[in-house]
Amino acid sequence: MNQSQNKQSNKTQITLAATLLATLLACLPPQALAQAAPPPQEKGPAPKDAMLHALAVQYPNPYRAMEAAEVKAVLDRVLAYLDASTPAELVSKSSGAPIGRLDQADPDAVLKPGDFRLTSYEWGVTYAGMLAAGAATGDRRYTDYTLRRHQLLSDLTRLYYPAVKADPANAQAPIKSFLNPHALDDAGALCMSFLKAQQASVRVDYGQMIDICATFVTRQEYRLKDGTLARGGPDGKGGVKMRPLPDTLWLDDMFMGVPTIALMGKQTGNAKYYDDAVRQVLQFSQRMFNPKLGIFMHGYVEGMRDHPELHWARANGWAIMAMVEVLEVLPTTHKGYQAVVRQLRAHARGLASFQDKDGLWHQLIDRPDSYLETSASAIYTYAIARAVNRGYLDKEMYGPMANLAWNAVAAKVNAKGEVEGTCVGTGMAFDPAFYYYRPVSVRAAHGYGPVLLAGAEIIEMNRKYKFGVNDSGFMYQGSR
Amino acid sequence: MNQSQNKQSNKTQITLAATLLATLLACLPPQALAQAAPPPQEKGPAPKDAMLHALAVQYPNPYRAMEAAEVKAVLDRVLAYLDASTPAELVSKSSGAPIGRLDQADPDAVLKPGDFRLTSYEWGVTYAGMLAAGAATGDRRYTDYTLRRHQLLSDLTRLYYPAVKADPANAQAPIKSFLNPHALDDAGALCMSFLKAQQASVRVDYGQMIDICATFVTRQEYRLKDGTLARGGPDGKGGVKMRPLPDTLWLDDMFMGVPTIALMGKQTGNAKYYDDAVRQVLQFSQRMFNPKLGIFMHGYVEGMRDHPELHWARANGWAIMAMVEVLEVLPTTHKGYQAVVRQLRAHARGLASFQDKDGLWHQLIDRPDSYLETSASAIYTYAIARAVNRGYLDKEMYGPMANLAWNAVAAKVNAKGEVEGTCVGTGMAFDPAFYYYRPVSVRAAHGYGPVLLAGAEIIEMNRKYKFGVNDSGFMYQGSR
Amino acid sequence: MNQSQNKQSNKTQITLAATLLATLLACLPPQALAQAAPPPQEKGPAPKDAMLHALAVQYPNPYRAMEAAEVKAVLDRVLAYLDASTPAELVSKSSGAPIGRLDQADPDAVLKPGDFRLTSYEWGVTYAGMLAAGAATGDRRYTDYTLRRHQLLSDLTRLYYPAVKADPANAQAPIKSFLNPHALDDAGALCMSFLKAQQASVRVDYGQMIDICATFVTRQEYRLKDGTLARGGPDGKGGVKMRPLPDTLWLDDMFMGVPTIALMGKQTGNAKYYDDAVRQVLQFSQRMFNPKLGIFMHGYVEGMRDHPELHWARANGWAIMAMVEVLEVLPTTHKGYQAVVRQLRAHARGLASFQDKDGLWHQLIDRPDSYLETSASAIYTYAIARAVNRGYLDKEMYGPMANLAWNAVAAKVNAKGEVEGTCVGTGMAFDPAFYYYRPVSVRAAHGYGPVLLAGAEIIEMNRKYKFGVNDSGFMYQGSR
Repeated sequence: MNQSQNKQSNKTQITLAATLLATLLACLPPQALAQAAPPPQEKGPAPKDAMLHALAVQYPNPYRAMEAAEVKAVLDRVLAYLDASTPAELVSKSSGAPIGRLDQADPDAVLKPGDFRLTSYEWGVTYAGMLAAGAATGDRRYTDYTLRRHQLLSDLTRLYYPAVKADPANAQAPIKSFLNPHALDDAGALCMSFLKAQQASVRVDYGQMIDICATFVTRQEYRLKDGTLARGGPDGKGGVKMRPLPDTLWLDDMFMGVPTIALMGKQTGNAKYYDDAVRQVLQFSQRMFNPKLGIFMHGYVEGMRDHPELHWARANGWAIMAMVEVLEVLPTTHKGYQAVVRQLRAHARGLASFQDKDGLWHQLIDRPDSYLETSASAIYTYAIARAVNRGYLDKEMYGPMANLAWNAVAAKVNAKGEVEGTCVGTGMAFDPAFYYYRPVSVRAAHGYGPVLLAGAEIIEMNRKYKFGVNDSGFMYQGSR
Repeated sequence: MNQSQNKQSNKTQITLAATLLATLLACLPPQALAQAAPPPQEKGPAPKDAMLHALAVQYPNPYRAMEAAEVKAVLDRVLAYLDASTPAELVSKSSGAPIGRLDQADPDAVLKPGDFRLTSYEWGVTYAGMLAAGAATGDRRYTDYTLRRHQLLSDLTRLYYPAVKADPANAQAPIKSFLNPHALDDAGALCMSFLKAQQASVRVDYGQMIDICATFVTRQEYRLKDGTLARGGPDGKGGVKMRPLPDTLWLDDMFMGVPTIALMGKQTGNAKYYDDAVRQVLQFSQRMFNPKLGIFMHGYVEGMRDHPELHWARANGWAIMAMVEVLEVLPTTHKGYQAVVRQLRAHARGLASFQDKDGLWHQLIDRPDSYLETSASAIYTYAIARAVNRGYLDKEMYGPMANLAWNAVAAKVNAKGEVEGTCVGTGMAFDPAFYYYRPVSVRAAHGYGPVLLAGAEIIEMNRKYKFGVNDSGFMYQGSR
Repeated sequence: MNQSQNKQSNKTQITLAATLLATLLACLPPQALAQAAPPPQEKGPAPKDAMLHALAVQYPNPYRAMEAAEVKAVLDRVLAYLDASTPAELVSKSSGAPIGRLDQADPDAVLKPGDFRLTSYEWGVTYAGMLAAGAATGDRRYTDYTLRRHQLLSDLTRLYYPAVKADPANAQAPIKSFLNPHALDDAGALCMSFLKAQQASVRVDYGQMIDICATFVTRQEYRLKDGTLARGGPDGKGGVKMRPLPDTLWLDDMFMGVPTIALMGKQTGNAKYYDDAVRQVLQFSQRMFNPKLGIFMHGYVEGMRDHPELHWARANGWAIMAMVEVLEVLPTTHKGYQAVVRQLRAHARGLASFQDKDGLWHQLIDRPDSYLETSASAIYTYAIARAVNRGYLDKEMYGPMANLAWNAVAAKVNAKGEVEGTCVGTGMAFDPAFYYYRPVSVRAAHGYGPVLLAGAEIIEMNRKYKFGVNDSGFMYQGSR
């Protein structure tokens, strides 16, 4: 054996050792490593006692407030990715060729496939997020992202709605799920984005679209006897839909329905919408909020004695987001205003108690051995920063929490502008394993709108209030 | 150095590296690996958004309801192991030779040694479990397991009891601890198994045996002034027994005593037994149930201000099992019936909130860094499935929990039919370390009866109600 | 390549593998390893069922009560280290030469630098700890440690105070922070040590020192309108100090102020001090104690709606220590006596529920993924053992907890007498990361006094009450 062979052999062994180590590291779940905070190491001679207090500390994420430009840099990556991956175009279903002109209904037309669906509820959130990012950064490209796609949806509605209305079962249309909605998911979040855009003077003809989706949300969706939005009602054929059981409440529906209802109050001036929005918030909360923990369960089956106390993070995000959206338009003089504010505060207090050390929240909020989930963390960031900006929550108490949450969320936006660590679409279940093992994917649409909303609101918060490090702690630094 | 030497040397190094790695892996506790749910990995190109919702998920245990035949296959392994390892025979203590005929007391006779004691309280549970498994599967071999051993105990009682009664201190007998009981452990669980067998028409003469053990449980065991069964009373020699301190309640005694008391109500028709059984449940619960957590502490010392809030899993099993056994015979018209049902429901609710992601519970229920314990998990499975089957608990809420608990318990029954992961016999202590470091062993007798009971009850539950996967979640699927 | 080269190369590879492994181990936080209790392994044939109950169990720390001599051996190491590393001498600031005579003020004199500051609040605790250790062990060297340093401080006060009093801003003095205090940290703990020493008849002239520090604590420190000691009041220049925000309560100040106030009651016989001490305990508790968890938050900002529920371990130590110190001198007939005892009991109950399996507590008490912290664990050990010794807490319930806590704390005293695992000086913050990532250091002065106090009190407790192992559990063994 010569030296070169020997080197080769040595290299093999080193590779083997490295492989074994890599295997070992791979079988250690990231959370196991992340969960226990290492007691920081002393290296070299111990510093003098008097120096210890001010020792520099290494945090995994920035321990400070990001500048507006830093936040915008993160959002810009998201915008670039989404603009490229969600074309606002029609193509021929058969040939794939572009369809440029939108002057008549074409049964062969479909939306050009992209990474995400332009009529999903998640995209309703993305449209709202782009509008918020445009307002916070002053960069028209964000606003235009929404405007262009809303314009396309408006055009398609104008062209295809008559046929769908005439024959809902058989008509063909590129956005059929929107034109003939069957669930709040088909209508609510999109409707919210339309109403927000219209009220912010985006120049699109929203009339017919709002009519379709707001009618579904406010009048057609199934409700319990006390008016609470529910799933699993009559299927229209004499049977009962199982979603997954009859008379089931999904916490998600606080968001899928309630902001639209509240915005319809502003849109129409009719107080009955405000009354209904407040009622939804309070009736969902009465059933599903755990006041001991300060968080909501995910699903609730009317008529059962106990309900699965599984505190799924994203649904809690929809709940707190619904509350800030309602408060955005609810007159402060409304008799339910203070009750909604109180519920929002109780929820924020509970969420604060479960924030992980590095700024995110867990897939099951009160189960620290479940994974850290991005979309929920982003929604909380948005809702809490918004609540600070509007004065529902103390800036001293919640400003640092929101900033550190944002910094952790921002670290989940990769170089391509994809949002990592988001749980895919998730139904309701009765056991913890279901939630623990839900996959995560950069193609889960749920992370994008929340990241945009969160970044935009953090820019606004740090523009309004000053946060910085004082005696090693990150905190509010303005006058009170 | 020639090539072969070099290879040898290389091999040594590789072995060294492997050894180091193995050592490292060995010093990583299994729980550390198991506890953090890995955020599921994406491999290859990310699936399209619309596909994500229905992605197949890999669970460590089956995520569905087992067929009756699958459950029976697990129980059959347990039966085979126990039938072989717990002979129902007498042997000569001196020669080890079999003693076939049971026609007279023989001072040299002992039970043939096996892996487990036929007169332990754990075997009282095993006898009940075999009866339940026989009923659920229709396989007589389970029933016969109990019948043969009960027959032997009955024969030995007939032969040896006169001498033990005449001279309790000095008489020799193969089942002396039963014939001259000193603690509930010697009498209660066996007595329950006799009463259940007799009431299920097993053809054994139980009269004298029930008289001995029921008298001890209902009249001879030490009690606090308010009648609650306790340990650590007078030692009969003017002193006080320390079990471990005077006037100490062990949660275990809810099971060691109360089912027998309740069954004596059915046996005799005398309502005083029902009153006493209900009183025990409520008085134990008042002292030891933590309503905030929904679980019981293990030990309680009358007269202390605070009590160790150490929520040992198996003792919580004995408590919930005691409640379902009481409800099995307590007339629904008894004035305490609803209070027992309420207590059972509060306990089930608490246990549900602590079920680990993979279906089991932890040695200290509310301490997720303590190990997952099989016997407790099996008892909960049994009690909760029974409660679903009897309507004390909602099938929609608790059926999935019980099924997934069973699937996890079943994975602990190895190919030999041994039950793995069961904590050995455990006294009461005042510190968490004691419970964290209790050994586990396949020879811990406590796991066997609960596995049999759990499997049998799961067969019954899935015969009665249909569970399946709906929108990726495992849930009840029948009509309500 | 010759054999020697080959060996060298092999050695390199082995070193590489070892380095990789060491790196891997280093990046695994100790808590990750420590946190999950390994289900104890079975090796060889399983023991018989009947033997399992009494199997020997390996605990990481001694599972028994230490003998007085064992405790003293630990304390002796601490004494040796501190006596050598904290010289009680003056030196010339310019030349470093010793200054032997203390007959006149010398503007060039400074305390000889050591590892710790003789006038820090932490050293106030150390002085008290040395006095307690001297009393418990009968070893005069402990008492002398405090006496020599108190004598030096007394001499320096006599020599330098006139000039500092005359011109606080410009006067030079070796112990200026004490002679011209600006915060409770400068005065309270030292004052407590002086008052305790004087009341225990240590022969030092304490008059002028006590006058300076007690006046600051009782009359000069900023308070909220209701009299509660606070930080962040007027800065004396028309502005407001930010510590870190105006009107901020630090739980630490329960200790930094209240024992001195209570001891002034004993010193002067004036009941107003007792009233104030009780008021502080109750007003801090009303604001900062979480009765659901049984522990205190660290910081509280008067006027905010919510407060950061970050339960920093050491501050909880200061709180419980303050309560036992108050009860040590408060007349049992004082109208607030029982309320303080109740608050102490509620806190002890809470702390008991969070003790880690191996005896210590976590940096954030209710966050098991934060590191185990020594100084807090030592303070709890002291306070709880003292409370047992004085009868505020049940010996049966809290004696085992205190003993096992001490055994774990003792394991943190290394061979050199340094205390490992103590969090460095820590301000108040609003986010968990701040506390999780605080460094630990053997030069953090906060660990030393508590270890001395804890060891001394454990000696007294085990002298008074007998604890031992009964049926595998460690518990109280005397009569009740």
